[in-house]
Amino acid sequence: MSAAFDFPAWQQAQRARVEQALSDWTPPHAPGGLGEAMRYAVLGGGKRLRALLALAACEAVGGHAGAALRAACALECIHAYSLVHDDMPCMDNDVLRRGQPTVHVKFGEAQALLAGDALQTLAFELLTPDEEQGMDGAMQARLVALLARAAGALGMAGGQAVDLASVGVQLTEPQLREMHRLKTGALLRAAPLMGAACAAGVSVKALEALGDYGDAIGLAFQVIDDVLDVTGSDAALGKTAGKDAAAGKPTYVSLLGLDAARALADELHAKALAALAASGLPDTRALAALAAATVHRDH
Amino acid sequence: MSAAFDFPAWQQAQRARVEQALSDWTPPHAPGGLGEAMRYAVLGGGKRLRALLALAACEAVGGHAGAALRAACALECIHAYSLVHDDMPCMDNDVLRRGQPTVHVKFGEAQALLAGDALQTLAFELLTPDEEQGMDGAMQARLVALLARAAGALGMAGGQAVDLASVGVQLTEPQLREMHRLKTGALLRAAPLMGAACAAGVSVKALEALGDYGDAIGLAFQVIDDVLDVTGSDAALGKTAGKDAAAGKPTYVSLLGLDAARALADELHAKALAALAASGLPDTRALAALAAATVHRDH
Repeated sequence: MSAAFDFPAWQQAQRARVEQALSDWTPPHAPGGLGEAMRYAVLGGGKRLRALLALAACEAVGGHAGAALRAACALECIHAYSLVHDDMPCMDNDVLRRGQPTVHVKFGEAQALLAGDALQTLAFELLTPDEEQGMDGAMQARLVALLARAAGALGMAGGQAVDLASVGVQLTEPQLREMHRLKTGALLRAAPLMGAACAAGVSVKALEALGDYGDAIGLAFQVIDDVLDVTGSDAALGKTAGKDAAAGKPTYVSLLGLDAARALADELHAKALAALAASGLPDTRALAALAAATVHRDH
Repeated sequence: MSAAFDFPAWQQAQRARVEQALSDWTPPHAPGGLGEAMRYAVLGGGKRLRALLALAACEAVGGHAGAALRAACALECIHAYSLVHDDMPCMDNDVLRRGQPTVHVKFGEAQALLAGDALQTLAFELLTPDEEQGMDGAMQARLVALLARAAGALGMAGGQAVDLASVGVQLTEPQLREMHRLKTGALLRAAPLMGAACAAGVSVKALEALGDYGDAIGLAFQVIDDVLDVTGSDAALGKTAGKDAAAGKPTYVSLLGLDAARALADELHAKALAALAASGLPDTRALAALAAATVHRDH
């Protein structure tokens, strides 16, 4: 930990690796125009927070870099699929994502449905390669298990079902927290754990700490999302600001007010840092910087 | 191979195992009503052909029965998810499936979208259990790899994209065959290979033969589907007969005529049996009976 840690440089380099790998691994030649729609969905930029969390955690435990890159891209495939489906007319009916037409606007609803489906599948393909030396079956299976549990009915998909059922309903703060724990939290918690699963012999203490860190980041991410929905502009967000409030969806801001929501985000930031300190891992600077970036982002 | 093989009894017993396992493993308590929609989609009956192929192949190679049951259920989850999404208004817009309202008719489009998504994820969860003794990481990873490649952009999902793009288009027989090789064939080929992956040390010759068998079954299944679309009744099929023809979709019957389509199915049946004979596996009676049942079915 002697040399200064240059987070912007680290972030830029890791994002470039992820973009390149996603481009390499998302088949342009998939038939019927499907590859084109998948690539549009997954290569459209974004913060790559889930990918960076996995890569940073893998670095912290000294894990298999090639496996972590696959885990990072698998997380982004799952995230991208959820956005494609979430934007569809029968869900949020959003026409703009990161300042660009959403997938169903550009390619039609049927192709968007298939592109989301195939991106989910691709995530699990990426985790079970033939050719990644040193990424044995046990590691592959552990990564699949972590991702599938986080993405499925008792994770992200379940959270989206709760979200659907909660439009126009006055949720309590614990109910709202539970919804977000599933909808966005499960994948953000899985990300550092998948990074850690790219090494053998990580201590239970470190894994528990990384889980706590992921929980805090996951919730902080959502609280800040709700704050930005109120305070951000369409241009900065690349999507329609104020839409959650307009849709009658419960948010941390509507429930707690703006100041208390910001205070909650700061508290969660502190929790994330405390978890890293408790992990016993020697170098968690990238993970710490990602926590700060999550809370202090403006889009 | 001395005792007579009672296929109806075998089929009934295996179907019952699969139904029970799917019921045990599809979470009723998934939040937001999602579990209910998933269970409606996956427990609605059906032939369970993919599951039976996996179970029969596992028996033929003397593999891990618990792993094969998971593989069988994972295949059925993928198949069920594809039907749920395929029935949606932006795809085939079907209101009836196995004589019952389709998932989106019963639960709404948004819930159907999520239920399909979560059923896909569940497939990969089922293949990566903590608690299945003797199903090691390498076996889990191999099963995930086979299923993901069969279901993804270069398999089932890709085939559906080709299907979308081919409405109203006059395909040649090779183009039609390629579409079905992906859309239904990939999963039907993967099924016996997944069953075989539940044992270690299966010969390359046997794996290749099971792949050839799966290819023949997969195509025969589709040819018979097209025949039944013309000759079957709504009641027997549990869905709207004649809908492919009405939708302007190319079929084997529209391309070859009814007699030549039936002759092709018989030829593929013979190919499947020849592959089993070439496999060197001692007891392939269940696989042989499944080939016959695929070609001689009336729904």
